[in-house]
Amino acid sequence: MKLATYQNHTRDGQLMVVSHDLSRAVAVPHIAATMQAALDDWSNVEPALQDTYRALSRGDAPHAEAFDPSRCHSPLPRAYQWADGSAYLNHVELVRKARGATVPESFYHDPLMYQGGSDNFLPPCAPIPLRDEAWGLDFEGEVAVITGDVALGTGVEECGRAIRLLMLVNDVTLRNLIPSELAKGFGFFQSKPATAFSPVAVTPDELGDAWHGGKVHLPLLVDYNGRRYGEPDAGVEMQFSFPELVAHVAKTRALCAGSIVGSGTVSNHDRRVGSCCLAEQRMIEIIDGGEARTPFMKVGDTVRIEMHDAGGASVFGAIEQTVVAHG
Amino acid sequence: MKLATYQNHTRDGQLMVVSHDLSRAVAVPHIAATMQAALDDWSNVEPALQDTYRALSRGDAPHAEAFDPSRCHSPLPRAYQWADGSAYLNHVELVRKARGATVPESFYHDPLMYQGGSDNFLPPCAPIPLRDEAWGLDFEGEVAVITGDVALGTGVEECGRAIRLLMLVNDVTLRNLIPSELAKGFGFFQSKPATAFSPVAVTPDELGDAWHGGKVHLPLLVDYNGRRYGEPDAGVEMQFSFPELVAHVAKTRALCAGSIVGSGTVSNHDRRVGSCCLAEQRMIEIIDGGEARTPFMKVGDTVRIEMHDAGGASVFGAIEQTVVAHG
Repeated sequence: MKLATYQNHTRDGQLMVVSHDLSRAVAVPHIAATMQAALDDWSNVEPALQDTYRALSRGDAPHAEAFDPSRCHSPLPRAYQWADGSAYLNHVELVRKARGATVPESFYHDPLMYQGGSDNFLPPCAPIPLRDEAWGLDFEGEVAVITGDVALGTGVEECGRAIRLLMLVNDVTLRNLIPSELAKGFGFFQSKPATAFSPVAVTPDELGDAWHGGKVHLPLLVDYNGRRYGEPDAGVEMQFSFPELVAHVAKTRALCAGSIVGSGTVSNHDRRVGSCCLAEQRMIEIIDGGEARTPFMKVGDTVRIEMHDAGGASVFGAIEQTVVAHG
Repeated sequence: MKLATYQNHTRDGQLMVVSHDLSRAVAVPHIAATMQAALDDWSNVEPALQDTYRALSRGDAPHAEAFDPSRCHSPLPRAYQWADGSAYLNHVELVRKARGATVPESFYHDPLMYQGGSDNFLPPCAPIPLRDEAWGLDFEGEVAVITGDVALGTGVEECGRAIRLLMLVNDVTLRNLIPSELAKGFGFFQSKPATAFSPVAVTPDELGDAWHGGKVHLPLLVDYNGRRYGEPDAGVEMQFSFPELVAHVAKTRALCAGSIVGSGTVSNHDRRVGSCCLAEQRMIEIIDGGEARTPFMKVGDTVRIEMHDAGGASVFGAIEQTVVAHG
């Protein structure tokens, strides 16, 4: 099943069921008004949503219309939690290697994770507002899950069963604000402005064989200014599966339905597949040549993040954003 | 005006208007069903809430009942944002001094702030579930504000006008999980389990003269196992005002109505006023005698956090929690 949220001048938008091929969509106010409402009451609501999804795919859903990603808000325009892991350790290894440091052994069994702001996500096709180019704007292509309720102390296997939906992510980052925030020791804050998610969130079964072991075994396609910048496989070298990342959150607290848990920047050791963020290329440049040459994003730059299934069809629709000057 | 949220077997509870003296309360489903709904539409909703508040104080609100803090959930049982500053630098100075480090000059003009989990707050009189005493459970008495919408890049003065409500906080912390999380560089995560807030949230005018300069000039009263543990003045040595803390968030992103921004552990240089967390006493013990003697909280321990106005009346009601073993 595929779901989206249309912007409708309310804060949480209008829940839409979207056809498998992303061609058609239908509002379902009689089932659930918003994505969060559906997640809050998932066991009761999901069967009716699935019925609508099947009808839509058969072509007999009344009031269905052409699906228009430009009308989409984030599947959850605002969420109660956005916790982002950093499960692709190649990315971490490059960052460390570029500054002459090694990756602590603990990083291979204890996930890195930061708490992100979740009160105001950017729509998938909305501009990225930037107040100052000197802040070093970067994109980060990721995959994320949306969970149901997860009790405190829930184990990995049960956390896997609590995964309701998957999305793609542009974890927008202000790289030049990171060093001083890391020095303060309280983690990322101003360096992580509003995040964007894909137009469509999908149930795990939509991925077919590509969803196994709690990972998405498909390349993440990232285009920067119209050219392919990276296409690493999200199922390769992901050190921690999504169930493990969710269990990391649940170790000391319960998760509310609608919590978003991210993978971190998708990254493979194979350099031929490119990168899902500019910082990683800069690290490779530093490692290879002593200095970073790739600049960060400038006003007018564009990024597109998408994922195709084995047949070449877009699974989640595309995040398509342009950087605009703000204020 | 004073507002609370009663638990009612829904996720977001029932908005209640509470009398100034905390003796009476009345549900207002015809005005706003939940605290978040009121904050989402504050300019339209606030006048009607104020009318009810005045009627309640006059004793002529139909259906009013005795106010029962034990029925309260957090004013926002779940929120879209919980960003906690560390504005009382005496606390930071003690932590640093105990480990032989100094406070960087930048800390005096650039606020420390971490993004907290906001999807599942503890009710003010609910137990604190603890899976492992070795994690080093601690309370942290704080003050927090709830904001309206704040646009990206909003300045300090306008951020002050966006402050809708104030609350007290128990920023529950697992001290022994902090060192490894700080070493990872991504900030607090597992070391910050579910937070608790006071039964009642109040508009700034409820504080009268005690609210000026964007700070609350009253002692925060913290009792540990039935004895006064700290009573520092929240208006003294607060390095950054609430408007400044909100502006810190807004530097790189907009805030959604209902965002909670905290002060950090209230702390005064004057040791006679005690501490609002156990860690601070432990730091003083290390500085004075070389080792920490005060243990962290154990199952059965209690903490009470409250604030009295100049006349000795409770402003927000009391956070009253007992540690219970979980799982």
